[in-house]
Amino acid sequence: MKRLAILGSTGSIGVQALDVVDRTPGRFEVVALAAGKNADKLVEQAKRYRPRVVALADRGAARRARELLGPGGPEVLEGDAGVVALATLSEVDLVLAAISGGAGLRSTAAAVEAGKGIGLANKESMVLAGEVLMRRAAAKGVTILPVDSEHSAIFQALVGHDHAHVRRLLLTASGGPLRTVPAGELAAVTPARALKHPNWSMGDKITIDSATLMNKGLEVIEARWLFDIEPRRIDIVVHPESIVHSMVEYVDGSVVAQLGVSDMRGPISYALAYPDRLRLDLPPLDLSRLGRLTFEPPDPARFPAFTLAYRALEAGGTAPAALSGADEAAVEAFLAGRCTFTRIAEVCEEVLEEQVVEPLTSVEQALDASDWGRRQAARRLGG
Amino acid sequence: MKRLAILGSTGSIGVQALDVVDRTPGRFEVVALAAGKNADKLVEQAKRYRPRVVALADRGAARRARELLGPGGPEVLEGDAGVVALATLSEVDLVLAAISGGAGLRSTAAAVEAGKGIGLANKESMVLAGEVLMRRAAAKGVTILPVDSEHSAIFQALVGHDHAHVRRLLLTASGGPLRTVPAGELAAVTPARALKHPNWSMGDKITIDSATLMNKGLEVIEARWLFDIEPRRIDIVVHPESIVHSMVEYVDGSVVAQLGVSDMRGPISYALAYPDRLRLDLPPLDLSRLGRLTFEPPDPARFPAFTLAYRALEAGGTAPAALSGADEAAVEAFLAGRCTFTRIAEVCEEVLEEQVVEPLTSVEQALDASDWGRRQAARRLGG
Repeated sequence: MKRLAILGSTGSIGVQALDVVDRTPGRFEVVALAAGKNADKLVEQAKRYRPRVVALADRGAARRARELLGPGGPEVLEGDAGVVALATLSEVDLVLAAISGGAGLRSTAAAVEAGKGIGLANKESMVLAGEVLMRRAAAKGVTILPVDSEHSAIFQALVGHDHAHVRRLLLTASGGPLRTVPAGELAAVTPARALKHPNWSMGDKITIDSATLMNKGLEVIEARWLFDIEPRRIDIVVHPESIVHSMVEYVDGSVVAQLGVSDMRGPISYALAYPDRLRLDLPPLDLSRLGRLTFEPPDPARFPAFTLAYRALEAGGTAPAALSGADEAAVEAFLAGRCTFTRIAEVCEEVLEEQVVEPLTSVEQALDASDWGRRQAARRLGG
Repeated sequence: MKRLAILGSTGSIGVQALDVVDRTPGRFEVVALAAGKNADKLVEQAKRYRPRVVALADRGAARRARELLGPGGPEVLEGDAGVVALATLSEVDLVLAAISGGAGLRSTAAAVEAGKGIGLANKESMVLAGEVLMRRAAAKGVTILPVDSEHSAIFQALVGHDHAHVRRLLLTASGGPLRTVPAGELAAVTPARALKHPNWSMGDKITIDSATLMNKGLEVIEARWLFDIEPRRIDIVVHPESIVHSMVEYVDGSVVAQLGVSDMRGPISYALAYPDRLRLDLPPLDLSRLGRLTFEPPDPARFPAFTLAYRALEAGGTAPAALSGADEAAVEAFLAGRCTFTRIAEVCEEVLEEQVVEPLTSVEQALDASDWGRRQAARRLGG
């Protein structure tokens, strides 16, 4: 039995990970669960999976959980420090890092330092501090298994092949809910419209990032560090059906792709079970029924956000962290009706231009740079 | 330098293999070339690649080659025995088995017995005697690398993954030149029409097999032996663009596919160089430019030939060999105007029904069964 700590258990990825646990009895033991502030849901999960320890980042929520769980229940840790402690428990084999945003970075970093296996669903860990985390993971002999469907696909398309033979990574992008909207209409797009993702049911932040293509840009940054590849060898191809999850092109022109239905339980289970594969009993991919898969180039004129990720990587150091922070603030402002859709990318670009980039040496520095980016963007947007 | 023997050097695969050699100077040494009866072309190749030995199956052609090459030229072997001798030369590292039809089987078998690496482009080797050859290859520690684009794709989609996790192999089929022809018109299809393959430029026999889908059936048989998988776990999906060369579905629903432009130099170079990959400088796959890939189920009502392959595998033993022989004769009859297009599959079915199947124990027995199938079909078709 692999012993799991699920960080972010009440979120979308966490809930689906527990579904994977349910579907594969005898495989996993859930020894620790952590969430932000949803005490009721965490308590419900704790009653069902009987972890030894739980943690809530919010102290009030932790108190409520203690009350609800009563004396016979699991130990309840609290605060960011509680979540970090849970990520490094000696009895944990694999940490599923699924706390979203910059908040997930410290616990991911702590799990790496503790030598845990990592299933990485926290995009910001790689975007803000991939350079540092991958170096530490190598030093600790830690394997970081991506949970993002795109990066899981690339991981699966690289397994068994020689890294030296890779010519390009081809990240697929759904194109998001606004893929076919003409340039002239983008400024007037409402949050409600931008939140209607065609293929994936995800949180608001990532759905807006998918609409701007910033999400794909952030994934380029992730891929750059996860797979140790120069940014110029990472390309994006828009694929509205989200069936081909990503591809690797080798030097002989051969392209290896990973495909599947749009169900995050696939990549989650891959990360949890690797090098094994789990029989999940999900509906299989039926290409004949789907009929067709389409592909088009991304349009930097309408969706310039993804190009900023390449610029941030070129600038190096703290630039990706600042970009990520700026984007968080800009998306927040857009969702609150404080800026237009097109202003998101503009503000991010302004912040990148303003930044004095420093070489990246620590996770704390990355978090600081992200906060700086967030503040700069918020200042521009009246947040 | 890997030392190559190219059997069938004057055919389509052989010529493209030599082009791969040209594009990768310093990689391969061509030490032996063999062909059927095209002495002029073989002599031209011999002058260019300077092999130590050449062979021609046709004795008259061998004599002509000796005259043309003169005293300072390579040794010229002759007859089927000459080709077999060439396939087992001590200085050969890898044999590219690209002699088409049953004629290629003996030399492939000899190369396996001699412990050579095999690049297998001779489909009949696996169709007629895969059961025997794979057993011998295992005993001799020989790796058989498929050159068929479909099987190369499956090989590449299996590398690094656990065979125990395979749920299905998904062989893609272009659907051939008659894919959209209504059932009622198939009987009247002329050889000229059936020879117009949309994607691949191949020999006549394989192009007609592609039109009937018998080719895909034979590939199912190949896959069954090459990858040691039960026939019920091999499915066919029609994919007219021939970009996805084939796929492997794993137990968790994840599908790994290999894609590429329709250029046999890709799979040829993979088989020649494995586990390396060669920089061939071919035009890369551009999915955005292609725009779309389509998929549909194969239609057993219009193209029943592929279903016969499953029946032959179920019957086992000598049945696939008889089917292969019957198909050779039927395609010949169709090309000569002696039978209709739809009669090809009918005759193959009749031969399968008539056959008394025996367990397969040797290559010679497989060749006999193929000859028997051929004679039975020819008898029915007035050949």
